Amino acid sequence: MRLSKLFTKTSKTTPADETAKNAQLLIQAGFIHKEMAGVYSYLPLGLMVIENIKAIVREEMNGIGGQELIMSGLQPKELWETTGRWSDETVDVWFKSKLKSGAEVGFGWTHEEPIVETMKQYVDSYKDLPANVYQFQTKLRNELRAKSGIMRGREFVMKDMYSCSTDAQQHEAFYQATIAAYNRVFERVGLGIDTYVTFASGGAFTQFSHEFQTICDAGEDIIYINREKGIALNEEVLNDKTLADLGVGRDELEKVKSAEVGNIFNFGTQKSEQMDFAFTNEQGERQYVHLGSYGIGITRLMGVIAEKFADDKGLVWPESVAPARVYIARLGDDETVTAEADKLYTLLTANGVSVLYDDREVRPGQKFADADLFGIPHRIIISEKTVAAGTFEYKSRVSDTAEAITLDDVGKMLGLSTSQLL
Amino acid sequence: MRLSKLFTKTSKTTPADETAKNAQLLIQAGFIHKEMAGVYSYLPLGLMVIENIKAIVREEMNGIGGQELIMSGLQPKELWETTGRWSDETVDVWFKSKLKSGAEVGFGWTHEEPIVETMKQYVDSYKDLPANVYQFQTKLRNELRAKSGIMRGREFVMKDMYSCSTDAQQHEAFYQATIAAYNRVFERVGLGIDTYVTFASGGAFTQFSHEFQTICDAGEDIIYINREKGIALNEEVLNDKTLADLGVGRDELEKVKSAEVGNIFNFGTQKSEQMDFAFTNEQGERQYVHLGSYGIGITRLMGVIAEKFADDKGLVWPESVAPARVYIARLGDDETVTAEADKLYTLLTANGVSVLYDDREVRPGQKFADADLFGIPHRIIISEKTVAAGTFEYKSRVSDTAEAITLDDVGKMLGLSTSQLL
Repeated sequence: MRLSKLFTKTSKTTPADETAKNAQLLIQAGFIHKEMAGVYSYLPLGLMVIENIKAIVREEMNGIGGQELIMSGLQPKELWETTGRWSDETVDVWFKSKLKSGAEVGFGWTHEEPIVETMKQYVDSYKDLPANVYQFQTKLRNELRAKSGIMRGREFVMKDMYSCSTDAQQHEAFYQATIAAYNRVFERVGLGIDTYVTFASGGAFTQFSHEFQTICDAGEDIIYINREKGIALNEEVLNDKTLADLGVGRDELEKVKSAEVGNIFNFGTQKSEQMDFAFTNEQGERQYVHLGSYGIGITRLMGVIAEKFADDKGLVWPESVAPARVYIARLGDDETVTAEADKLYTLLTANGVSVLYDDREVRPGQKFADADLFGIPHRIIISEKTVAAGTFEYKSRVSDTAEAITLDDVGKMLGLSTSQLL
Repeated sequence: MRLSKLFTKTSKTTPADETAKNAQLLIQAGFIHKEMAGVYSYLPLGLMVIENIKAIVREEMNGIGGQELIMSGLQPKELWETTGRWSDETVDVWFKSKLKSGAEVGFGWTHEEPIVETMKQYVDSYKDLPANVYQFQTKLRNELRAKSGIMRGREFVMKDMYSCSTDAQQHEAFYQATIAAYNRVFERVGLGIDTYVTFASGGAFTQFSHEFQTICDAGEDIIYINREKGIALNEEVLNDKTLADLGVGRDELEKVKSAEVGNIFNFGTQKSEQMDFAFTNEQGERQYVHLGSYGIGITRLMGVIAEKFADDKGLVWPESVAPARVYIARLGDDETVTAEADKLYTLLTANGVSVLYDDREVRPGQKFADADLFGIPHRIIISEKTVAAGTFEYKSRVSDTAEAITLDDVGKMLGLSTSQLL
């Protein structure tokens, strides 16, 4: 994409009404726009990050047999009354409104109930199970406070998956497959090393539940970790029994701030019983379906990545989620320089490499500053000097040193073959 | 996708609470699930149709310089009060709710106001214009009645685009480019021949506005067309002056039912004045921005396509939007038959051809019926008979006759090269 065409602009001023670093930087870089507290729009560069994260999550969910669908935001009161989750005393984040008829409706903050209602229509026999479905859905939650930027919004994108299994064993197999898939997701978006499967208190059906927590100073949670053993637990389960079970001593634990980037939950048959979601087993008996739910906050994940990697110059995106892999800065408007820069831009995009091409008529300092603020992994400068030398000036976003490289080097760095560079 | 893995099932029963053919068929085929009147979830096959339509629209919007973003559903009251569109007397489709603080919020039913508010931040000079942005957004509208299935929902997906221009001339250029792009969209989704740019009454700024109307018995509109001259107008502007302007006589017009699949609107500078959206022109003077808005109802379009092409056997999708291009039905579970069917499935998917592979253990009649109900363009049967003959049995969804074809024929039909078939 040519920056001369992009309608957003960067700003040097930190937005006064934002305390969260992720929102400050994303607004300054023109990735998001604040609509009201906890509610943001995603402008072109921000939307690209979201779509990159979604593509990774989608691949991993499809890989474990997830089937994508999209549920409605509007939710009927009657459905949620079957499980007691309509009441504002039980669930304090509902946004509610009324149809013209006077009937109450809510706006989906999670989707277990409608998923079960849908699956009831299709699941009848053990042969129909397991069935695992997921969606990328915009959730609305009437949060009392919203001060963490896109890490906790009143409106946010969530990947929520739901599993339907015949029994505890079938459930457990998918639950473990999901843990592995989630680990791959966090690895791929660059958070692998700092993300822990964290033991939390279980429900009626399991000793523990599991959260995926990423070490992050801006996080709202506290966890206790042992980096060497790869063990993490939260305060709820920090007791002698758990420590013995996990084989770790209290003095071996480090207390860190963290952000919950994923959660997985075993409902057992509780919700199926409430909603009469049953199937016929091999023996011809009716049994309740075992349910699980599995969330990843897509926009929260984007916020955590922004928070964790940013430096004093701006955002720093891992290549897998960056709005572009390469930033080409053309310095000056010399004809040969322009031709060379256009040529590299065309060559890279033709080979599927995403590029932000800074072809704007602004001074070099602004281009360097914006390349850093945007957080694009690879910066390539093309100027009269580099054209004369027959090289490019290259700098990684995470390095302070620029170096002269050849077209072959560019190709190698981006994983292009020699024939692709011709 | 293997049908044995798909969790949805087809139904022979027409849903009793649906009067619209599109909803009836889409529910029976397992493409959508009704959550409440006018509110549907999109199950895997339905979501694929939506995504195919979106991909076409996205390509055409990018082609005319549209930049994709995504606005929030939640909308603050104050913003909409600036244009007088918060009031329920002016706008009767708002869903509204309250934050914990007591502040009122609405749920976006269109997005001119927040778009202007966002663009104000980035547009300052004539050099920043034109700027054209669009989104695929889930709109909520508190419709009094919702009886047309997905053709008029209380929750629906819309592509809405907004243009910001320096003056009437710049606006007009983009307006015309959009008309051309919309025509390409409707052409590509198979509705070209029956979709008319329809003259409707203009606002303060133009003699006419334009609607894109598709001839459709289930539509809620009436238009007057001349097929030969490619002229259409609606009742509002059906008068002698318009007829003279358009060069068509009253007796040359045919009255037809139609569905509005797209609309484009020139706001002139009205909304910019209300919201103080201005720029500095080349002479250093502050001027108001010319605004346009351009909608395509994505889910409505899907409904119209379903309505128009369906026959007594079920849905009929144009290849461009079908959930899969090919339906492979394997008859029986003979080892050689299974091997041949698996092989064709693998070959086609490896070459980027989307396939629904009916590998279920159900009787042939059910497979034929489902292939028809799903509306997949190309049906290929693999049985002991076809394997013995070294051919495939092929039937187009819109034909009654099956024929024996070779692998080469399959390749030609799907646009694959000979080397791709090896």
